[in-house]
Order: sequence, then structure tokens, then C-alpha cells
Amino acid sequence: MNNKDFVKEITNIDEDFARWYTDIVIKAELADYTAAKGFIAIRPYGYAIWENIQKYADNEFKKHGIKNISMPVLIPENLLQKEKDHVEGFAPEVAWVTVGGEEKLEERLCVRPTSETMFSTMYSKWLTSWRDLPYLYNQWCNVIRWEKETRPFLRSREFLWQEGHTIHETDEEAKKFTLDMLNVYADIIENLLAIPVLRGKKTEKEQFAGADSTYTVETLMHDGRALQAGTSHYFGQNFSKPFNIKFQNREGKEEYAYQTSWGISTRLIGAVIMAHGDNRGLKLPPKVAPIQVVIVPVAMHKEGVKEKAEELYNILSKKYKVELDKRDQYSPGYKFNDWEMRGVPIRLEIGPRDIENNKCVLVRRDTAEKIEINLNELEDNLETILEDIQKTMYNECKKNVEDRTTIATNMDEFITNINEHQGYIKAMWCGDKECEEKIHDITGAKSRCIPFEQEELSNKCVCCGKQADKMVIWGRQY
Amino acid sequence: MNNKDFVKEITNIDEDFARWYTDIVIKAELADYTAAKGFIAIRPYGYAIWENIQKYADNEFKKHGIKNISMPVLIPENLLQKEKDHVEGFAPEVAWVTVGGEEKLEERLCVRPTSETMFSTMYSKWLTSWRDLPYLYNQWCNVIRWEKETRPFLRSREFLWQEGHTIHETDEEAKKFTLDMLNVYADIIENLLAIPVLRGKKTEKEQFAGADSTYTVETLMHDGRALQAGTSHYFGQNFSKPFNIKFQNREGKEEYAYQTSWGISTRLIGAVIMAHGDNRGLKLPPKVAPIQVVIVPVAMHKEGVKEKAEELYNILSKKYKVELDKRDQYSPGYKFNDWEMRGVPIRLEIGPRDIENNKCVLVRRDTAEKIEINLNELEDNLETILEDIQKTMYNECKKNVEDRTTIATNMDEFITNINEHQGYIKAMWCGDKECEEKIHDITGAKSRCIPFEQEELSNKCVCCGKQADKMVIWGRQY
Repeated sequence: MNNKDFVKEITNIDEDFARWYTDIVIKAELADYTAAKGFIAIRPYGYAIWENIQKYADNEFKKHGIKNISMPVLIPENLLQKEKDHVEGFAPEVAWVTVGGEEKLEERLCVRPTSETMFSTMYSKWLTSWRDLPYLYNQWCNVIRWEKETRPFLRSREFLWQEGHTIHETDEEAKKFTLDMLNVYADIIENLLAIPVLRGKKTEKEQFAGADSTYTVETLMHDGRALQAGTSHYFGQNFSKPFNIKFQNREGKEEYAYQTSWGISTRLIGAVIMAHGDNRGLKLPPKVAPIQVVIVPVAMHKEGVKEKAEELYNILSKKYKVELDKRDQYSPGYKFNDWEMRGVPIRLEIGPRDIENNKCVLVRRDTAEKIEINLNELEDNLETILEDIQKTMYNECKKNVEDRTTIATNMDEFITNINEHQGYIKAMWCGDKECEEKIHDITGAKSRCIPFEQEELSNKCVCCGKQADKMVIWGRQY
Repeated sequence: MNNKDFVKEITNIDEDFARWYTDIVIKAELADYTAAKGFIAIRPYGYAIWENIQKYADNEFKKHGIKNISMPVLIPENLLQKEKDHVEGFAPEVAWVTVGGEEKLEERLCVRPTSETMFSTMYSKWLTSWRDLPYLYNQWCNVIRWEKETRPFLRSREFLWQEGHTIHETDEEAKKFTLDMLNVYADIIENLLAIPVLRGKKTEKEQFAGADSTYTVETLMHDGRALQAGTSHYFGQNFSKPFNIKFQNREGKEEYAYQTSWGISTRLIGAVIMAHGDNRGLKLPPKVAPIQVVIVPVAMHKEGVKEKAEELYNILSKKYKVELDKRDQYSPGYKFNDWEMRGVPIRLEIGPRDIENNKCVLVRRDTAEKIEINLNELEDNLETILEDIQKTMYNECKKNVEDRTTIATNMDEFITNINEHQGYIKAMWCGDKECEEKIHDITGAKSRCIPFEQEELSNKCVCCGKQADKMVIWGRQY
């Protein structure tokens, strides 16, 4: 990195959002391109965000009695083919291992794009009685999907995720669990990542290959495009029948199990970047930030400054995630820009005059507000300020959603709205797949979901004008 | 599982150790075979052991300033070929992806067997100045090595591990770091897993493909065979030169970085099974056990028993990892056997008479000792007992190592010793690879390492009788 005002090198967020995004990913050192086309390396600062998401999510999963396991990364071709819709959905985008240990394999193995098939064969092997149920298993792993156009975090040939797979005694229990997991995702995204979510059911066209129904938490980015942030699927017996996942039920009869799966991925790092960032760079919610407070000493060469900064570091790092920037090859001004670009929620400046007055200056990344604070009050006040930043960031995101949510009762309104605001468009839908496809062809918007919170805007489909009783939220997507 | 005395189904440990091992893996539900040949599924109980190892190790790594990252799982063929020794060592056992997204790839990609090459290309891209150094990065991930003969945990086509990769400004710093990491491994294996280790340097023949030197922590299993439990490699500039990992040094000149790598894997689960297990089944050290105390209510149908068991569960689970076995389809006797087989360090039995007397019975898995204890003293005493179990298990393992460690000054002694004791054989070695190979051909033993703690047994090579100044420890291995 050169000692110039590199922040200027970031593309303006309103001019070219896509380039702004890539600039942030690279310059904030979240990830980088690699020698394997379409594959990224997640760098320490990006990975630390993922670790914070993992820790929070894993803790929530464990509260729900979910246990972690590990399934093979390679899946024999015949397994993938057992569920018809599933193989149709995934076969076009898998990577195949055809040679192992210098020999051509008799049967190809795909690198898992998702593991329903592998979990299903093992469940079939393990399950005998209703007493064994439910199986509530999850794995944290990597998956591969051979995307043609890739983008760091959002659409990468490999991504890291968790995939939960459960089987249950009854359809009611499985359905409830599907929604419980959706609520866990909503909690993670809203409370940890400070991004409001829209909850609902996917239309049949948009649901997971092989699912009976797919539920989603949708988010809206700074530029008004939507991002599917997490999904939870109810399979019914779609997999348990071809994979023979049977158990003896309470009446002593054989029955097929009821199944779910659900996942969130490193895509959420992309969501954080695009939901919160601005022209200064990344902006991280305190709860998920790898560094919550960065201490930048001013006039570090003056007597006592470095020592005081170190003293503060030692005190504060017991309670907060703190970094002390002692680099002597950079000016304070450079460091201010650097840490702003990296999205650290609070900058703490301390110089000779501050020390004299037993105070320091805090600068909020979200509002740029400067706060002079007595050093004796620092430790406790930081918590309040971090909480306020978290809340403020959530509210700002929420305002963006509200500002960009419009209603359309006909296609003209739909087109005008989406071109003016991007965002979410609420519109009634007749339930016909043809209307859904037509809307996409004309506007580029897909159905985000049939939200749980329905409103009766009218009784006519926005597209064909026929009878409609479902409100769908639409939007262009990442 | 049937309601019969399944413990009898476990092969006798002294009759057929290999089958005993497989029985434990399957019956204690640590792992299972899958539809992908040579690949295992790690089940919740096995994975929970791995999570405990990860948590402990990751915490130690972070104390050393190591940061986690994620590199691509697929490596282009040309990268693998850049370091001559490395590709020779790994090419025969890799799996190749040749098709992606329904198209034949122009260049094959191997599923990573290890990631020196990928880290090296990224380090080459990122590194500019000595000020950037050291890079201390690690990743927790899966790797594939196309083994012909596989065994759960010990030698599986896929395993989970961490691979640390660091680059440094000087060779001294890199060499020191290599040994620091070896010491972290020794600490994990001795203090968490209660298995004593032997530390030393690998002979040139046994070192990692591409390394300048490989250090190892070796362990000895119940049957006297050795298991390499973790290795740490110093590369010098072997990779930094072909991969062009250069930096401007303090004198303003270009210099190649000094590199290390180090790894431990799910193989450690195999080590825990084989170092501690007995004819009752698995025996887990309390610090790594997913369940430390299992509460088994006796005469559960009698009034107040279940309630008291639940009360104890609620109190104890605040401090310990506790399971309450309320299954009503099994007898207490069945449960005793079941939990012993699963290696839970302490069984807590509580029945109507115990409740009357305000006491319970603890049974130690390691010594089978029964301890009557007053319920008021339970919470505090458990800690002491768990600590004692951990120590006793370590000492028992250590005794096995001592009993099975012998000295050989000539090949006759070597052969007699290894056939009688298996174990470690201390013998002088001239340093000649031919002697090393001859010893292996005759006895089946490989050099474990040149231990840091050298003894001068004689000045003659055990094999050729020529001048020898190195003591090597030898042993048959897993």
C-alpha cells in the first residue's frame, strides 16, 4: 500500500456500485482473486467476519439441539441422480473428479454442491425407530458450484457455508423446524449483521431443486438490489422415498421420514459490505467487526504518547476487540483513512494534549461524529456507543428498505417504480408461472418471496389482471 | 442398536487390535463408512471430539498471533508442479477435477492434498516489504489424498485438518516458529489428549516433500505401534524461490522469504481411540470428552428418581459436560455398558436408596473404581476426580511407552525387541539412507525421528556397524 490518499482510489458508490464493491473487497483485504479461476482466497480480515458469524450461528444451532458432523466432499454420480428434480437443478453446475491416484475412476464423483444426497444415504443407514428421531445435524464446510460469472463472496465457484439437514417423525414437526431455522437466520442477519430481513416463502419457480417448499430471508442492498441471504427448505418425503429413509413408527409400521435442510454462507460477508458501505469504504456493525475500536496515537514520537496508547490498549482489549496502530511509516491522517476504509466502528485518537487533559477523541465510523471523552469514563461509555452504532446502522438500512419499497398495481407502475427506486415492489400475483416469467423478462425483477405478512393491495394480478390473492415482493437481485 | 449385551460384540483388544479399532469407531458412533469408497462420515460424537481439539488448538494459535484464512480447495496443475520434490511426493495421490459445469477443463485442477503451492502464490502476490512480515496464517479445512488402503481417521481419502503456513524475514525466526508450533502440538496431545509425545526431527527419507527439515511429535498406541501425530516443517527458501515470494529487506534489497508449514488432523481422534481404549471400549480423557459425566437413574419409574436426576443434571451441566440418560427402553445395566463403551469418564448412578441417603455413586471409566459421594459434595469433587482421571490416563499411556521402549545395539537385538515389545527402539544410526531402508525391510520398522533428547548408546550404527553419532527411535507405524 502506498502512502497516499488511497481512499480516492475507491470508485464512487453511486457511480458504479459493482466496481465500488470489488474495490472494497480487495482494498480492505477481505478477499483476493487466486490462480484458480472463479475461486477466491478469504484473507484474515474477511475470515474473521466469517468466524464471528459462525460462532454466533453455531451457538444458536446448539441451543436448538443441533449437532455438527462431517460428510464426504465427494459424492458418487449415482447418488446425485436419485432425486430427479435435484439432479436437474444441480448437475449443470457441478465439478467432476474423474481421476484419483493416477487412475481413471469407474464412477465419477462430484464435488458437493450441497449434501442432501449424502445425508440421505447415511440417514437411511442409521435410522431404525421413531425413538432415534429427530436427527438434527449440521456441517460447516465448503461447496462448489461452477458459476460462469463469479463475484467475490456473492457468487464464487467455491463458498463456505453451513448446511443443516434434519429428519423428523412427522410433517408438522419438520415444517415447524424449517421455520425455526428461518427465524435463527433472521436473528443472525438482523441482530448480528444489522440488516433488516424480509421473511417469506419462495414461489415454486424459485424454490430449491427437490424441495416441497423453500422459505427465505431476503435483504436489500445499498443500491436497491435484493440479496437472498439464507434459505430453509421443507422436503416432505421427496428424498426419504428414493433414498429409503424409513423408520418404525409408534404404531410399529414402516414410515418415511420428513426432512428439512437450510443454509447460510460466506455470501453474508457480501451482504454486510453492500448493505452498509459508503464512499469512505466498508462499514462494519460492531457485533460482527473483527476490530471494534482502533487506537491511533497522534504525534507518536512525543514523550508518553505511545505508552499511554499501549496502556489504553491493555485496558480496553480485556472487554473489546481493539487494535493499536503503532506503524511509524504512516501519518495519523493516512491511518484515519485506512481504518475508515476498513470499516472499524470507532477510532480512538490520543495525542499529547489529550493526555494532558486526561481525555481522548472518539470518532464514529457510521456518523463521523467526534466525541471528546474523559479517560476515566472511556471503558464504560464505549459499550453504549458501540450499541448505538449497531442500532443506528440497522435503522439506516431499514430506512433504505422503506424508501425503496413501492407498490405496483399494473405493469406500467411496476416498470416506473423499479427504474426509479430499484428496491422491493409489492404487487399482487395470480399464482401463474407465466406471469412470473413475464415480469422477469420485462423488468429484470424476480419474485423475492410471498411474504408472511400479507397485504391485500387489490384482487388483481399486476401482470395479467386476473383474480389474485397473493401479495408477492419483487426485486432485481444479486 | 439391540437391547443385548453388545459390549461382547467388540473384538478382544489383544486378539485383533485392528478389528477392535474398527468396532469402536462404528459402535461408539464416532464415524461410519459412506457410499464414497475410502471416505468416512464423522458422526456427532466423533465430531464433538474434533471440535474440542479445534477449540483448544485455535486458541493456542491465536495466542501466537496466527490468523485464519481460507484458500481454494482446487489447485491448478501448473501450480502443483512448481516445486519439484513437492509434486513428486503428492502427484501420485491426488484426485483430479477434469470437468466443471458440463465442460472439459483446459487445465486439470487437483483437490488440495495440502496447500503450500496455493499459499505460496498468494504470498508472492501480497508480500512487498519486510514490514509486512511475518505472515502467520492458518486454515481449518478438508484435504484429499487418494490412499489405496484406508482406515477411519488414520488413513482416509479425505480428512479434516488445520494447515498453518507462515513466511518470515529471517531463517532464524522461521526455524524458531517451526519449533514453537511443534511445541503447541506437543501441548495439545499431552495436555488435552493425555498422550505422551516423543519430539524430534525426521530423517531426510521421512521428511515432507519439499521441506528443508521436518519435525514431528510421535505417539505410541496401546498395541505398541507408533503414530505420527503432528508435523512441523521448515522450508527455507525451497518454495519462495520457485514461487517468487520476495520482499524488500531492511537494507532495501530484494530477498526471498523463509517459510514454514505445520498440521494436525482428525487422525488425532484415531490416536485417542488407540492410545486409551480397552476391552470395554473407548476411554476418553475428560478434557476432550464430549460428555464428561453421564447420569444414569436407577429404578427410574420409582417416585422422585427422574426428578432428582434432572435436578442434578441442571446443577452439574452449568460446570461440566453432562448427559442424562432417560431412555426408558433400556435397563440401567445396558446403559452402564453403553456409556462405558462410549468412553464417558464418569458415570453417576442415582436410585431411590441413594436419594434417601442424599448420596450417589460415581464410577470411573479409567479404573472402574466406585465412589460413594454425598450430594452436597458432588459439584466440587467432580472437578478433582476428572483431573485425576486425566492424569491417570496420561500416566498409564506413559507407562506403556516406557514398558515398550528398548535399546538395540545390533540387528539381532532389534529384531527380538520389536517382535517381543513392538514399541520404540532406540538405536544408533550412521546417517546412511541404505541402513534406514534395510532396517525397514528386515523389521518393518521405520525411523520415527532423531529425538531432541539424544543419548549416546554406543558409537556404532545398529545396522552397518560403522561410525554413528545419531540416536534414532524406530518403530512400526500406523
